[in-house]
Amino acid sequence: MNTYRVLESGADLRKLVERLYPLCRSITGDGVRRTLDILGEHLPLTVHEVPTGTRVLDWTVPQEWNIRDAYVKDATGRRVIDFRESNLHVVGYSVPVSRTMPLAELREHLHTLPEHPAWVPYRTSYYAPAWGFCLAQDALDALPDGDYEVCVDSTLDDGSLTYAEHVVPGRVAEEVLVSCHTCHPSLANDNLAGIAIAAAFAQGIENPHYTYRFLFMPGTIGAITWLARNRERTGRIRAGLVLACAGDPGSLTYKRSRRGDAEIDRVLAYVLSGRSHTITDFSPYGYDERQFCSPGFDLGVGSLTRTPYAGYPEYHTSADDLGFLSTEAMSETLDVLRDAQAVLDRDRTYVNLSPYGEPQLGKRGLYDSLGGRSDAKQAQLAMLWVLNLSDGEHSLLDVAQRSGLPFDSVAAAADALHDAGLLEG
Amino acid sequence: MNTYRVLESGADLRKLVERLYPLCRSITGDGVRRTLDILGEHLPLTVHEVPTGTRVLDWTVPQEWNIRDAYVKDATGRRVIDFRESNLHVVGYSVPVSRTMPLAELREHLHTLPEHPAWVPYRTSYYAPAWGFCLAQDALDALPDGDYEVCVDSTLDDGSLTYAEHVVPGRVAEEVLVSCHTCHPSLANDNLAGIAIAAAFAQGIENPHYTYRFLFMPGTIGAITWLARNRERTGRIRAGLVLACAGDPGSLTYKRSRRGDAEIDRVLAYVLSGRSHTITDFSPYGYDERQFCSPGFDLGVGSLTRTPYAGYPEYHTSADDLGFLSTEAMSETLDVLRDAQAVLDRDRTYVNLSPYGEPQLGKRGLYDSLGGRSDAKQAQLAMLWVLNLSDGEHSLLDVAQRSGLPFDSVAAAADALHDAGLLEG
Amino acid sequence: MNTYRVLESGADLRKLVERLYPLCRSITGDGVRRTLDILGEHLPLTVHEVPTGTRVLDWTVPQEWNIRDAYVKDATGRRVIDFRESNLHVVGYSVPVSRTMPLAELREHLHTLPEHPAWVPYRTSYYAPAWGFCLAQDALDALPDGDYEVCVDSTLDDGSLTYAEHVVPGRVAEEVLVSCHTCHPSLANDNLAGIAIAAAFAQGIENPHYTYRFLFMPGTIGAITWLARNRERTGRIRAGLVLACAGDPGSLTYKRSRRGDAEIDRVLAYVLSGRSHTITDFSPYGYDERQFCSPGFDLGVGSLTRTPYAGYPEYHTSADDLGFLSTEAMSETLDVLRDAQAVLDRDRTYVNLSPYGEPQLGKRGLYDSLGGRSDAKQAQLAMLWVLNLSDGEHSLLDVAQRSGLPFDSVAAAADALHDAGLLEG
Repeated sequence: MNTYRVLESGADLRKLVERLYPLCRSITGDGVRRTLDILGEHLPLTVHEVPTGTRVLDWTVPQEWNIRDAYVKDATGRRVIDFRESNLHVVGYSVPVSRTMPLAELREHLHTLPEHPAWVPYRTSYYAPAWGFCLAQDALDALPDGDYEVCVDSTLDDGSLTYAEHVVPGRVAEEVLVSCHTCHPSLANDNLAGIAIAAAFAQGIENPHYTYRFLFMPGTIGAITWLARNRERTGRIRAGLVLACAGDPGSLTYKRSRRGDAEIDRVLAYVLSGRSHTITDFSPYGYDERQFCSPGFDLGVGSLTRTPYAGYPEYHTSADDLGFLSTEAMSETLDVLRDAQAVLDRDRTYVNLSPYGEPQLGKRGLYDSLGGRSDAKQAQLAMLWVLNLSDGEHSLLDVAQRSGLPFDSVAAAADALHDAGLLEG
Repeated sequence: MNTYRVLESGADLRKLVERLYPLCRSITGDGVRRTLDILGEHLPLTVHEVPTGTRVLDWTVPQEWNIRDAYVKDATGRRVIDFRESNLHVVGYSVPVSRTMPLAELREHLHTLPEHPAWVPYRTSYYAPAWGFCLAQDALDALPDGDYEVCVDSTLDDGSLTYAEHVVPGRVAEEVLVSCHTCHPSLANDNLAGIAIAAAFAQGIENPHYTYRFLFMPGTIGAITWLARNRERTGRIRAGLVLACAGDPGSLTYKRSRRGDAEIDRVLAYVLSGRSHTITDFSPYGYDERQFCSPGFDLGVGSLTRTPYAGYPEYHTSADDLGFLSTEAMSETLDVLRDAQAVLDRDRTYVNLSPYGEPQLGKRGLYDSLGGRSDAKQAQLAMLWVLNLSDGEHSLLDVAQRSGLPFDSVAAAADALHDAGLLEG
Repeated sequence: MNTYRVLESGADLRKLVERLYPLCRSITGDGVRRTLDILGEHLPLTVHEVPTGTRVLDWTVPQEWNIRDAYVKDATGRRVIDFRESNLHVVGYSVPVSRTMPLAELREHLHTLPEHPAWVPYRTSYYAPAWGFCLAQDALDALPDGDYEVCVDSTLDDGSLTYAEHVVPGRVAEEVLVSCHTCHPSLANDNLAGIAIAAAFAQGIENPHYTYRFLFMPGTIGAITWLARNRERTGRIRAGLVLACAGDPGSLTYKRSRRGDAEIDRVLAYVLSGRSHTITDFSPYGYDERQFCSPGFDLGVGSLTRTPYAGYPEYHTSADDLGFLSTEAMSETLDVLRDAQAVLDRDRTYVNLSPYGEPQLGKRGLYDSLGGRSDAKQAQLAMLWVLNLSDGEHSLLDVAQRSGLPFDSVAAAADALHDAGLLEG
């Protein structure tokens, strides 16, 4: 993998985000392809193109949208709204338009945020043919009455929906999903931070037990397309995380899977316990956990964010820019993913093969020969806990939680006991 | 139903209580019949007469008791205790007596409340032949020694036990019971308030999903008689409420069914959540929930009161009079019953027919076409919640509680989704 | 049983502990036999001798250890460490030695407690051949350099492991275990207090429902030996308690069985509720609950102590002496055992034979004939609770806990109802 550019530090994450930031992404189109090209410098990706019109679950892959330019010009020919300044100025999936109209008519196509008059909102109209512009309320207020020339130089044609996969093969076929949406244009926290962190996370997984599958795909329609094409695979998804809003300065938030007590829910609760964090119950709103946790699939997929979906004023506005990201926050999110992977990948349920009474650990060299001391070593305690709870119903994470011992100690004890022939599984 | 007198306001409830208050009710006899006659001006009632001696479960319908007069006269011929002043003065089911006796002997038949010396207690002796008088401690203290003429002009003969039913037919045969005891004489809160509120509640139920059955019957022996005669019907009782002590100024109390998690328990917890209230666990003491929740039946029947059974000093005394009632309290109790009925009657468990991923609501006109906004409308959220939890195991009330959305919104979302062919059930 | 010496008071318990205190016990040997001889003056005991080399579960019965003398003499011939002063001075199971060596070499065989320089620690080396001495840090610091004569006059030969049983036969074959470890030398709280209290407890059990089996045996290897020889019996062990550290002035601690909700767990929680106490979850460390609660057996066995295992500074040191014991504490522990036995032995699950509605208690003489009073007697309430919950799934202890009524009242109600033919079971 040494032909790929390694993401080592928070600064590397930030640089990747900066490269991706200017691209005009949407749920289809060349912006997504260019994004995946850049990501492909860091990770081997399998890119899928799914043709317009393909039936996917209850949905249909839409026409592909591309845009070259868009603007509103005043009577003097000055661009008062200009796509070249920011791709947020155009409503995503705007149909082509080239007309002159008075401000009053134009207003029906303009979107602002009166409560944040300097910010430009992010809006889309994927499934209803329409066009529109987004701008700052201050900018709108400054427009004099009069006629304006409106141009959206976009195309909506049969094409394809683009998404990519990166797989780290494991020793077993069971899979862990990590999913990021790639459909937002110049929004840094939502979701370029997540994309960059996922790439760095993927780079660091070595020789895992489970197979790790990273999905970079547009929100909603992408997840639905992937699920439609991988329906039989869903039976072997052991766990998953939807990663979004991963770089803002707020503290970490884990949103449980619909099941609420899936393994991923317990792993995240465990690894977050030493950090400032919030855990919330599942709700069918947010990112693609909506699809993975729809009742027919009901997968053990949770969502990791910092400030959650729609929970910060900058959400879906031009203020979600590069300055909004915290390098430290991105590094911490990455650390949590790595911690979670370490636990998830090593968590196993064993069976004690000598379950009647304690096996004599001393004769196997696993126990201090000097008795009477009250300061039993952690390693010995961990072995007793693993032996006691290894009845086929408690995993090592259960043991760590019941015993209060570090997961690493518990896992090491299980290794020693397994090597001694005392555990199976 | 326009030949029946409508109970519209709290004032109407109070007027009905005032008419019923003077009647000498007991577990049998003409006082009950007269009570049902008056109630029958407001509701069509089916009145049942069950003959003395009829075996009902472990019990036997007793002889019928009627009373014309009762008094204790002093040596001057003055009535020092007088049934005509208050029917509480005579122990219920007192056998006839006509004798003269000294105060010392009479005292063994007199009941007072030393801790409330001005109040007359309410006492009965249904199943052991006896006679007695109840009076204020102050009145007893004022009686000089000497002989007293004692008269109870009552009859205890074979006759019948009287109870009434009012049924509001539903679209399904499953039934909801509302039960009030009718056996207490001049006690206002216990249970004339309950009787009046139940009648008003019954009047307001229109075209319900479930069949609503109102029972007006004497405590214990009445419920046992009804259960004995309706044993096969108990299999289709979905829920029930025993209504008592419904008009005192204390806050509302709901006592759970024996099951503790029956639908009625969840509905009452939900509708009471916005009001000052208390919820208590089931106990096998109180009103006829004792019978409905006996382990052989174990019905989903809870009990709604204001201050609960025996929880106020005026309980079973002459101080439970018309002045003890609060018109506002009676109206609030009625409101809660109506709220509960609205939820219970509309609560249903659906199955999402498009459970793999979210169905595309936009193409069905159920979703905003403009994306990107964070202020998802409540109606859309409600649809997502209903779709996500409609797996055949969650009812709309579950959805409302899990989502925090109002039940009405959830039910409206279910209607819209059902109309769109996305839900079954 | 009048040929046995009765333990009546806390003072009797203390006297028994004082007699046992000087003996040099270990997991085998004559110290244990002498201990059981003295205990046998109070209780009929069945003493078992299990030969060295016997395979017991994953273990093997070790050689028998006996010791006559041991010392370290300085150059002047003075015993600077002397077994005759305290048997704690010799590491348990020390192999014979007779040599002279310089202090530097001797030090590797010396154990002290630097944090408590005046106390002698208790150490053993059962399963690794070794020898050693324990002494106060202060005493060690006072030793001048030079040569010392070292003598351990012990034997390690094929012999047997000794344990004893005392059985109080019950009306049913199901058993309740009470287990005490007998392997500690001069340590008062750990576990002579437990041994004495168990003996007094056993003396007081009369005509029990369950069979009570008291086990006096060395820790770990004793329990493993007993389990190996009574494997088929474990199927009829209903409950058990490991009794240890039963006489220190700390408050009571109950450690739950591995199951966490076994009957013994609920009984102890109930009887401790009125006393200062702590309840902890199971952990696979401590006393012989480790063996009884190994996953293959998973018996409903908890552990009753005062300050728990290793929870006090004096633990496993010479400071756990007779002065450390509280006579009042020993008496209280005994009281709790008796309370627990009273509940456990009387707890039963009944079936109400008249479960449809309440049976008419009045006609059976079980209910007050005068109605209307709100102060229902506790006995009547208890009958209603027993009838209501006796569905085959709630025991009398459940009834006591749900009702808040004293267990004695509930049990008396069950007796009355059973006598009236209303309960089965």
